[in-house]
Amino acid sequence: MSAGILDGLRVTEVSAFIAAPMGGMTLAQLGAEVIRIDPIGGNIDYRRWPLAPSGSSIYWASLNRGKRSVALALNTPEGQELARALIARPDAPGETGGILLTNLPTAGWMSHEALSRHRADLIMLRLTGNHDGSGAVDYTVNCASGFPIATGRDAAPVNHVLPAWDIAAGLYLSTGLLAAERARRKDGQGREVTLALSDVMLASVGNLGYLADVQVNGTVRPPMGNDLYGALGRDFTTRDGRSVMIVAISNRQWRAIGKATGLTEKFAMIGPMMEVDLDTEGGRFQARGAIFALLEAWCAARSLAEIGAAFGGSGVLWGPYQDFGQLLAEDPRCSEANPMFGRIDQPGLGTILAPAGPLGFSNPEGLGQDRLPPRPAPSLGQDTDQVLAEVLGLSGAAIGKLHDAGTVAGPVSFDTPLPR
Amino acid sequence: MSAGILDGLRVTEVSAFIAAPMGGMTLAQLGAEVIRIDPIGGNIDYRRWPLAPSGSSIYWASLNRGKRSVALALNTPEGQELARALIARPDAPGETGGILLTNLPTAGWMSHEALSRHRADLIMLRLTGNHDGSGAVDYTVNCASGFPIATGRDAAPVNHVLPAWDIAAGLYLSTGLLAAERARRKDGQGREVTLALSDVMLASVGNLGYLADVQVNGTVRPPMGNDLYGALGRDFTTRDGRSVMIVAISNRQWRAIGKATGLTEKFAMIGPMMEVDLDTEGGRFQARGAIFALLEAWCAARSLAEIGAAFGGSGVLWGPYQDFGQLLAEDPRCSEANPMFGRIDQPGLGTILAPAGPLGFSNPEGLGQDRLPPRPAPSLGQDTDQVLAEVLGLSGAAIGKLHDAGTVAGPVSFDTPLPR
Repeated sequence: MSAGILDGLRVTEVSAFIAAPMGGMTLAQLGAEVIRIDPIGGNIDYRRWPLAPSGSSIYWASLNRGKRSVALALNTPEGQELARALIARPDAPGETGGILLTNLPTAGWMSHEALSRHRADLIMLRLTGNHDGSGAVDYTVNCASGFPIATGRDAAPVNHVLPAWDIAAGLYLSTGLLAAERARRKDGQGREVTLALSDVMLASVGNLGYLADVQVNGTVRPPMGNDLYGALGRDFTTRDGRSVMIVAISNRQWRAIGKATGLTEKFAMIGPMMEVDLDTEGGRFQARGAIFALLEAWCAARSLAEIGAAFGGSGVLWGPYQDFGQLLAEDPRCSEANPMFGRIDQPGLGTILAPAGPLGFSNPEGLGQDRLPPRPAPSLGQDTDQVLAEVLGLSGAAIGKLHDAGTVAGPVSFDTPLPR
Repeated sequence: MSAGILDGLRVTEVSAFIAAPMGGMTLAQLGAEVIRIDPIGGNIDYRRWPLAPSGSSIYWASLNRGKRSVALALNTPEGQELARALIARPDAPGETGGILLTNLPTAGWMSHEALSRHRADLIMLRLTGNHDGSGAVDYTVNCASGFPIATGRDAAPVNHVLPAWDIAAGLYLSTGLLAAERARRKDGQGREVTLALSDVMLASVGNLGYLADVQVNGTVRPPMGNDLYGALGRDFTTRDGRSVMIVAISNRQWRAIGKATGLTEKFAMIGPMMEVDLDTEGGRFQARGAIFALLEAWCAARSLAEIGAAFGGSGVLWGPYQDFGQLLAEDPRCSEANPMFGRIDQPGLGTILAPAGPLGFSNPEGLGQDRLPPRPAPSLGQDTDQVLAEVLGLSGAAIGKLHDAGTVAGPVSFDTPLPR
């Protein structure tokens, strides 16, 4: 197993919540050394729910796996000086640093301008709420996106539970960081890379055609429950009270449904009845009411297991609905049978199944797939002393003085009361 | 305006639908030359709904902006030979190619092994449905994720309308591509990079802590409507029948709500009444019913405009719900007032407002922000002749012969009937 495809890349992260931590974790999963700097006692996300019985935040531990943790008194000039030294240190041979990833306010010592005085080729990625720097979070971006109004069966807004904009923003950050680092290797120049969470939403709404549909056709996509738009698909209830999603996009998938259910001949009656061509996506969408009626009855007469047996190997595009517990208990993709998963010993949580990064890389030496196994998140400040020694070359005595002065902190137990 | 931060990078894309085209478009928006190769007549996504009155697919035109389009008879050895030449051509000075991005089946000529015989350092990104190579799409991945069961007010599954897994997969592809290209510049080695759409889902469910919550606490997150989990937030209806999302994550945001609504004193009664500490996220979450009751009444007595006036500049984290039409009509972030947006002349759609990529890069020469403006999608085969001449050095006569033999095609009008 190699060190990961981004071995030698060093990223400093000053962050909270989902998007920036996800961006940093994505790079750590590819082998970058990601040092998350937090204030002593933790940042605002350090006790975010859900919590384990130990008091550890499951949320924090899940979004910061594979990173190193350094705790500094960021509200003091001395703490800021250490953070700046970590961020802007010149590269040692074989390593590439000078990269800061943040979604926190960057006025003062943490501005690109201030940090660039210490390292001219600094790359800084800065996530804001809106493009003008004003605040927004996934929830307040999502409500504006149009999707909650288009979700569900009526005009009442239905929020997604998945923080999709945060996830996309995190992955735009990892893409933008690697793009800026590539450019720096060619021209030697540092850059400030900016990304607004609401721009991620707006770009996505545009990329998916919703803005053009309004402009060109005057069409505002209405809520359609779980029906696909422009193709065939919906959820169906099984005899044993489970649900399945059945989809046909290609003609081959459509024919597979007829064959696997034995409904081919009945489906053939629908085309003339509804006056559409069922060998087109649009035709099937227009006739979906009649097609769904047949599939509803077929699913209602069968258990999930029977449907799985009928569809297995048939070419039907389908899947069972699962809650988070069923996903873990019933889906073999969510187990060590999937090479993405492994077991980690997570401080505060115990030994748990956890995913590595989803990207796999063929190993040029033919030694199997080049993917780092999942690693636990650090406890807060776990790596403070080691990073100060390794990266800044501080002596044990110097580090001891920093502890005595309250400028740095070692591992913080979850039993320590939070400062208010 | 520079050529974009990825200037000189060439990516060939053989793709359909959302994820891989989004990955390629993201790179094109950063200045990479992205050549999308399609079969003559278009791939399976070429007529995907919604359509413009011209017959153009708004979907296709929105997901392929800024690319070049080449149409080849991919079902013939001659067409495959041209595609292979475009993918595996040695680099000219100042350019970096030898990169293929695909979400289509890659057996035969398009396998990494076959293509690597023509260019040993080939990087190939391959998106599959599941990690074992079996098929899955956003809809059938999403149903398994747990989120539809946790969405809405009861156990009935509610699908998201946003193809969130496709978007995340596209951005993992752009991240993975840049990571593999970075490694190649260090070690000269090509790689096959694999990504499964269901692994993107599974990794995200794990990254957000849902899998650990089941394992550590035995907790399966239930549907809670539009309530935030573990913090304060929900949708509220205004006097004029609109909806707003109001959120407080930090204590500062919580106090801002009290101040802007004048409800501070009433909020103060809730802490003792519910026996929680309202200066904690968890306390506010536990007492949310009482807090929501006050906010419901406050919002119901005010119009959206009045609420906007009360919250403007107050530090309250909030936003209006908007459908796709209101987003375009009412939200200044979705207009040319936002530097991400511009107008493009899109063949088949007319002149429309469209987003550029959301990442902005400071220009090292101080010439403003280094972001390419939005560019239209090509018409199918628009660049066939030019790419064959430029990239493969073919003469006009040779290209003419390829047209005569039906091996390549120029621009395809949307009036041309699709081959079945």
